Amino acid sequence: MRIAPAEFHLARHARLRAELAAAAIDTLLVTSLPNIAYLTGLFASTAAVVVTPTALRLIIDGRYLGTAKLRQHDLPGLTIDLVPATSSFEQSVADAVVASSNGKAGFEADLLTVRQHLDLVGRLARSGSKTGLEGTQGLVERLRVVKDDWELGRLLDAAGRLSDAAKCIIPKALAGMAEREVAAVIEAQLRYVGFDKPAFDTIVAAGPNSAVPHYRAGDRRLSEGDLVVIDFGGMLDGYAVDLTRTITVGRPRERERQLLEHVAAAQAAAFAAIAPGTAATAVDDAARRALEAAGLGEAFSHGTGHGLGLEIHERPRVARWRADLVDEALQPGMVFTLEPGAYLAGWGGARIEDDVVVTADGAKWLTDVPRLL
Amino acid sequence: MRIAPAEFHLARHARLRAELAAAAIDTLLVTSLPNIAYLTGLFASTAAVVVTPTALRLIIDGRYLGTAKLRQHDLPGLTIDLVPATSSFEQSVADAVVASSNGKAGFEADLLTVRQHLDLVGRLARSGSKTGLEGTQGLVERLRVVKDDWELGRLLDAAGRLSDAAKCIIPKALAGMAEREVAAVIEAQLRYVGFDKPAFDTIVAAGPNSAVPHYRAGDRRLSEGDLVVIDFGGMLDGYAVDLTRTITVGRPRERERQLLEHVAAAQAAAFAAIAPGTAATAVDDAARRALEAAGLGEAFSHGTGHGLGLEIHERPRVARWRADLVDEALQPGMVFTLEPGAYLAGWGGARIEDDVVVTADGAKWLTDVPRLL
Repeated sequence: MRIAPAEFHLARHARLRAELAAAAIDTLLVTSLPNIAYLTGLFASTAAVVVTPTALRLIIDGRYLGTAKLRQHDLPGLTIDLVPATSSFEQSVADAVVASSNGKAGFEADLLTVRQHLDLVGRLARSGSKTGLEGTQGLVERLRVVKDDWELGRLLDAAGRLSDAAKCIIPKALAGMAEREVAAVIEAQLRYVGFDKPAFDTIVAAGPNSAVPHYRAGDRRLSEGDLVVIDFGGMLDGYAVDLTRTITVGRPRERERQLLEHVAAAQAAAFAAIAPGTAATAVDDAARRALEAAGLGEAFSHGTGHGLGLEIHERPRVARWRADLVDEALQPGMVFTLEPGAYLAGWGGARIEDDVVVTADGAKWLTDVPRLL
Repeated sequence: MRIAPAEFHLARHARLRAELAAAAIDTLLVTSLPNIAYLTGLFASTAAVVVTPTALRLIIDGRYLGTAKLRQHDLPGLTIDLVPATSSFEQSVADAVVASSNGKAGFEADLLTVRQHLDLVGRLARSGSKTGLEGTQGLVERLRVVKDDWELGRLLDAAGRLSDAAKCIIPKALAGMAEREVAAVIEAQLRYVGFDKPAFDTIVAAGPNSAVPHYRAGDRRLSEGDLVVIDFGGMLDGYAVDLTRTITVGRPRERERQLLEHVAAAQAAAFAAIAPGTAATAVDDAARRALEAAGLGEAFSHGTGHGLGLEIHERPRVARWRADLVDEALQPGMVFTLEPGAYLAGWGGARIEDDVVVTADGAKWLTDVPRLL
């Protein structure tokens, strides 16, 4: 796994500290694993980071000590708190918060459960600390939404490999295979082009199943005339990319061909709507109006896209405007999917998905595969 | 996907209601997705259930309506709250809690985040409801730890298929392949024997990598003399099974052979320690003493096993005794892994893992593959 050079991590720390200062928080407890990877380069299943104005404390157990020590060599300010064999991860986290904080410590309210919060409050009280805890939201996620150059390099590399894998989908070779067999072929292909793992359960939805957007892969054999939605993604160096193509088994009939062209046109309309400063919901709106004009407005039952990065679904949200959710203004360096679809229950559906990056004057495709295979 | 017949779900509801009555809680909001699957048979990515003494309300959006309606046909007491297109999932959950509760509603404190809890409290207040929320822990998980006959059938079927896949690991056929290629072969094999997906990222750790218990699969090619830890699992009908074998590429030398035999003996000692009423930590202790007697106590750096079911890691915890964690008394119908290992940094390691069920007079292996391939 390639890890960002220290200069990128140090720049991320500086941006986070500016956020903390603006929020009048001296110490932040980070428990989101993707956020920890973003700040330290360490991908661990159990870890925490405590960020202060001058230091980053990484709390880990012995399993990650070797990797973390390597990181420490080139990341000034990073210290490691190793969980003692006789203690617990939770106690080490509480100790690090007490040792770091000057009275108030922020925590990630979207990550800590009610039970973890109560446990931490109890440990702070028992230590005699007067440190108060304050819920925060999205302090690190807000940095992650605009990718730095190292991340853009990783995402471009991954999207190229995903495109290579997609080019090996040969519709006529798949006829007669069961959906789950096609999924197995695609996941082997993902490994072959270098991915560490699939980014999510591969979707192969044939015939009537293609009309069910959340379908995975089952026992139906791909049959002449089927529309088949194939949606897959990979993780490389910790970053996720995502692509969908809809094929027809055998020559497409007029109705299938038109459906695919309408969906491709909606995707093109969404792409054309991307510009710095534009609201993410306006990109969704562009795809939606294109499908509505084709009489497929009702058939488009999900959002147009989602951000990509250390998580397969992250900010920005490219979907219908909603009063209770953030509508992000697009900025160069944001990376997301464009995946309009149209689903006609009982008959079939289509989705076409590619990955894009916002540029200074519009957008650039990261994936590169013919839309209609 | 096969779903438990209604009688099993109804029995689970009755057991849960007895737990609720004992805890003096009239209403429980369930947000854990495995718990929702356990109670309804619905595997959804967004759903909630509100349990009352007489009814089960399932809150879902339109994607799962078709599946949920089928379930409703044969589950008396199940009602569906469909999230309106103009509202939000969170509001529908709050509405269901208000409509169901008689003053106090429990929630799952290990699942709800601080932010979700605050949001729910706000929605209840704005609705004018006087309903108070009370954190609960493990009310459904405590039922899940003892598998019912339907679950045991699924786990036995899955473990048999996993054993079939394991028998296709031919050490000499793997020489020269990269770890990630071996992982791809194994994951294709999992699909082939019928699994819906891998239960976790397949581990293939060769040579010195075999000494790193949390290693996944990288670029090292399997070379003559390597110890190779191969750890994989599958999900079938929503249930997880898990198996590890350690092979040697080429004929094992004396040191490798002895290591494998010590680990296999530790697993046998753990199995022999299983009986109803025995503490789960005593099973760990048996494996640990066997490895200590072989001078490998320090080299065994993790727990002996973990429960299997709707999650790949669930209760019971079969590991060292710890004051702050539950030490479960074993009961017939509990299913867990036995996976002792020994890791010698820089040289190599071994782990052998099988799945067992506790019976009335001991235990039974669910997986069935020679220990030394």
